[in-house]
Formats: sequence, structure tokens, C-alpha cells
Amino acid sequence: MNITFEKFDLQMRHRFTISRASRTFTPLVLTQISLGAAIGRGEASLPPYLPENQTTVIQFLEKTNIFLANNFKNINAQNFDYQTIEQIMDSLETLSENDTAAKASIDIALHNLWADLQQKKLWQLWGINPETMPETSCTLGIDTPSVIREKVTHMKDFKVLKVKLGTDDDKILIETIREMTDKPLYVDANAGWKDREKVLDLIYWLQSKNTILVEQPMAKENLEDHAWLREKSPLPIFADESFQRLRDLEKVKNAFHGVNIKLMKCTGLREARKIIVEARKNDLKIMVGCMSETSCAIMAAAQIAPLVDFADLDSTWLTTNNPFESPILRGGKICL
Amino acid sequence: MNITFEKFDLQMRHRFTISRASRTFTPLVLTQISLGAAIGRGEASLPPYLPENQTTVIQFLEKTNIFLANNFKNINAQNFDYQTIEQIMDSLETLSENDTAAKASIDIALHNLWADLQQKKLWQLWGINPETMPETSCTLGIDTPSVIREKVTHMKDFKVLKVKLGTDDDKILIETIREMTDKPLYVDANAGWKDREKVLDLIYWLQSKNTILVEQPMAKENLEDHAWLREKSPLPIFADESFQRLRDLEKVKNAFHGVNIKLMKCTGLREARKIIVEARKNDLKIMVGCMSETSCAIMAAAQIAPLVDFADLDSTWLTTNNPFESPILRGGKICL
Repeated sequence: MNITFEKFDLQMRHRFTISRASRTFTPLVLTQISLGAAIGRGEASLPPYLPENQTTVIQFLEKTNIFLANNFKNINAQNFDYQTIEQIMDSLETLSENDTAAKASIDIALHNLWADLQQKKLWQLWGINPETMPETSCTLGIDTPSVIREKVTHMKDFKVLKVKLGTDDDKILIETIREMTDKPLYVDANAGWKDREKVLDLIYWLQSKNTILVEQPMAKENLEDHAWLREKSPLPIFADESFQRLRDLEKVKNAFHGVNIKLMKCTGLREARKIIVEARKNDLKIMVGCMSETSCAIMAAAQIAPLVDFADLDSTWLTTNNPFESPILRGGKICL
Repeated sequence: MNITFEKFDLQMRHRFTISRASRTFTPLVLTQISLGAAIGRGEASLPPYLPENQTTVIQFLEKTNIFLANNFKNINAQNFDYQTIEQIMDSLETLSENDTAAKASIDIALHNLWADLQQKKLWQLWGINPETMPETSCTLGIDTPSVIREKVTHMKDFKVLKVKLGTDDDKILIETIREMTDKPLYVDANAGWKDREKVLDLIYWLQSKNTILVEQPMAKENLEDHAWLREKSPLPIFADESFQRLRDLEKVKNAFHGVNIKLMKCTGLREARKIIVEARKNDLKIMVGCMSETSCAIMAAAQIAPLVDFADLDSTWLTTNNPFESPILRGGKICL
């Protein structure tokens, strides 16, 4: 079992602006693990505002290759099973504490390898009911009204839009969208709002504009104001920047109504599935989201999306050089 | 693939009394499905107050054998997989609308057959984290204070007790237990309570006695009073008699805080797992319970118990002639 990899720059269809950053492409590392005739592909997505980059990912993958050669040399196509994935991913935690996107690229490749060996899709192997797939939203970055208008017309196949807010022009942006469509909205402030009383007023206003949920209203460390909002907000608030991994649930469960699970944050499908179980036990709503990713990571996340309440798996529609077959949308939902 | 079966009477350790019935044994049908060298065991448990009995189960199994011979004759140990279970269980719904325990006996046998073919436990095949197993409660039937006292001393390994209420002596029974132990209690009224105002008073009193949850306070059809209780009760109320299958979630979701899933009610593990996903999407708490069952059905339910909030999988400790190896309790939890 050996991981091969290559750098890849995923080009955004439009310059993509959120409350604290703007970019035209996203660096990726595409990975591949083969075992006998079976292969599994994975991917690390590395937005510039996060600590990992292509160099750190490749360093981690090289370290992992040595580790696998020393510790998992007896794995073959016959004895590779789900426990192999569990054991490898457990072991990677001993190699480093962070490197979550690098780990996710391995986790996704291992899961796809397992599916390939079993000649099944992951959702089938897990007995997940594809009929409970939620609609996926499509994301509008922060833009001028004319660009927003153009983008909204290109999102006609989506039943829900997600809107990046967090600037002084938030209401103008929403009003612009509402001139075009009355589709339900998810709002993502990306920690861009400051004064909790004003935030609460804004959430009431957003509710009147048919907003369904609000992601990460305020700074990620500011659990106190989020807990205050959680009590008072008429819309559910979701932790994104405040929530990375399973161990963070304890910290956020009393400050938010739900969590946004992203494979790149939580080291992949193995931990994502554990988060889903634990989040439910803590009465949390769940959203599955994405970074700028190819079909590889999007379809990996889509396998578990039927287990959750909301999906925001849109990046293949927002990028231009996805090297894999595009996901298919039917009735606003990704087809498994 | 052929189902073989035998009748079996599971003897209760003590006469078992709930608010509407009493018995000393429970009729079962033990099933077995073999495929090549692999076998899977299943079981139908048939408490006398429910519509199925050993005769109806055996009729259904004979009908299923003919159906399998006609429609699944090409299944062998090589091509049997989880989709086979899905397809067979889907097909059984066309044979009859009810017969849920008979269907569960087939579902459990098919799952155990699959696990045997894969040489894995079900929780491993599903990637379920055994560390999230909840403690299991042990049930006290309605009895005189002296018998209650004797039983409580025999339940020292359990961290939670479940108490059957629903008579005029409810408070005496709780007081008797509280003279012996301060362990948390689950209360099951088995639809035995009538006046909702009095029920609410009683639930407040039960809360003061360290009760954690209340199952089925009132009549199963009485959703209106349960919805009223749901708004006012300081403890979560769980649907048991009011909830059988996936399709019942819609009906109970606004009348209860949670549902009690039992394999015998919901046709087995396949549907139980779907219920877990849907119940979570509807913000419902989940309990996994049992009828009087051997280790076969108890350990089947235990495979999915790490996904839920509360477990009441105690029947192997309340019966005397369990034909299989007993489950092992560690720290009040069933070991997987």
C-alpha cells in the first residue's frame, strides 16, 4: 500500500470572496492509494487562510508512506477491511496532532479503496438510505449586485442558495437576491459579525427574508456571545470555524444549535461518521459542507449526507477544472 | 437459502407484571438461515398481548421459504451482501403488512449470516464506535415491596433501573426502590395513566426522585394528551406502544420527545437503522428496547445501541433458559 500524490490548482469560476479573504483558485493535493488491482482516490483542499498548504500535505504523505511500510506491510487486497481504515487513521493521530486535510486525503482514498475492493458504493456498504439525501445549497460569495444577479441566474437547478455575509452591505446583498428569487437561503457570516445585539436584530430580519439557518455569526473563540445568541435567535446557528473535530463537540454544544462537518476539518469520513452519532446524542443539528473540492471529496461527503439535515456540497459547480466526472444534481439533490 | 425454525418458550426468572398483563414465560420462534458453511440465527419474541404468535410466525416463515426459493435462488455465499438483505426485506413487505416479529426473525438471521460470511461483527461492518455504548437499564416489573427489594439487590451490576408503573401503587413502588438505591430510574407506564394533569404532577414527583425519562405515559392512540405533556413535562417522554415502524415517526414526532425502537416492532435491524437516521432529523431522542428475548436478538440490538441515547436490553438477565451464551455487562454496558 503506497500513497502517490500530485499538486493541483482548482480554478474558481468567479473570484470568490468571503468576509475575511478572496481568491481565484484553491491549491489541492490529489492522492491515490492502490492495493492489487484496486485503487482509491483522495484529496486535500487547502484554502489559503488555513494552516496547511501543498508542502505540508506532501511532507505528511511522505511520512505516512514510511509509516505504512513499517506498520501495515501485511495488508493486501484480501485482508483490507474497514478495521484497516480505523487502524490506519488511529495511527496517523500519533504522527501529528493537526494536518487534518492531509489526513482527510488519506481517509478518503482509503474509503474509496475499500469501496473499490468491495465493488460497492460507500453508502451501500453502510446501508445508508439514499432517499433521505437533503437538497444541497449553492454558494454566492460576496459580490456586487450585478455579479450576484448573474450568478443567481446560473443557479437555477439548486433549490437553496447559501449567501456569504459579514460586511456592511449584508442587507443590500440579500435584497439583491430577493429581487431575483424567493428560494430559501442559508446565511454564512464566516465570523464576520461583531455586536451580538445587532446580530440578533439582523437574524430576525434575515428570518423575514426566508433564511433557514445562519452559520458562524461571530468570532470562532467567542462562545459566550454564541451561547447568548443560541438562546435568543429565531433561526438555528451553526458552528463552522468554531468546530473542527469530534473533540470540539463538548465545547460548542451549548453555544450553537448545530455543527457544519467538513471532511477537510475533521480528517475525513471515519471521524465525520463518529461526529454525526455524537452530535445527535447532544441534540445538535448537522450540516455537511465542503471547501473548494473536486468531485472526489464532494462525492465522498455526499455518501454520508443522507444522515444529516443540511448539505452544502457545491464546489464542483463553482470551479472550472474539476478533473473528475461532475456530480449529477436531481431535484436539487446530489445523486448517489 | 432456507429458513429453519423451532418453537421455544423463554422462562421468566420471576412472574412479570406490567400495567395490563402478567406472564411466566414468553413464546419464541428461533430461526436459522444457512448459506454454504455460513449460518445466521434469528428470533421472534411473541408476548401474549401482541397479535403474532408461534403459529402465525411459522406460517410466515413457510411462506417466505417458498418466496425465497422462487425469487432469490441465485444467491450464494459469494454474492450475498448487504443489498441482498435490503432486497429480501423489501420483498417481505409485499407478502404481508404486519408480521413484524416474524420479519424481524428473518432480518436478524440475515444480518448474522452476513456477519458470519464477512467474519466480522455487525458493528465492525458498519464502522460503529463501541465506545459510545450507553448503559443498559434492568427492568423491575410491578411487584410487592418485598419482591422489589429482593430484585433490586440482584441488579447491583446495572447502573440504571427501569420501573414498570401504571397502577395505584406507583409512588409506593418508587419509594420502596428509593429505600434501597439512588440509581437513576427510567419509568415505563405502559399506557397505564389516564388524567394528563395528574400525570404531569406525577412526572414532577418522579423527577424529584431522580427519574431520567418516562415511557408511554398514556394510551397509544392518545396523541393529543401526549402532545400536551410534551410541552409541559420536565422529563422527556418516549413513545413505545404509540410507535412501531419508520412510517409512525411522522405521527409521534410532535407528541413525544423520543421513541423506543424494538426490533420485534420494526421488523429488525434494517428498518431500525433507518428509524435512527430519521428520528434524529426530527430532533427525537432514541432508546433501543427489547421484548423477552434470548442473547440472539439482544446482541443484534446491542450492535446499533452505540448510535442511540438509552438502552434497555435486559431480557437475558430476567430469563432462566436462554439457549445462547449470555451477554457480558461491563460498567453497566453490554460488551460488543
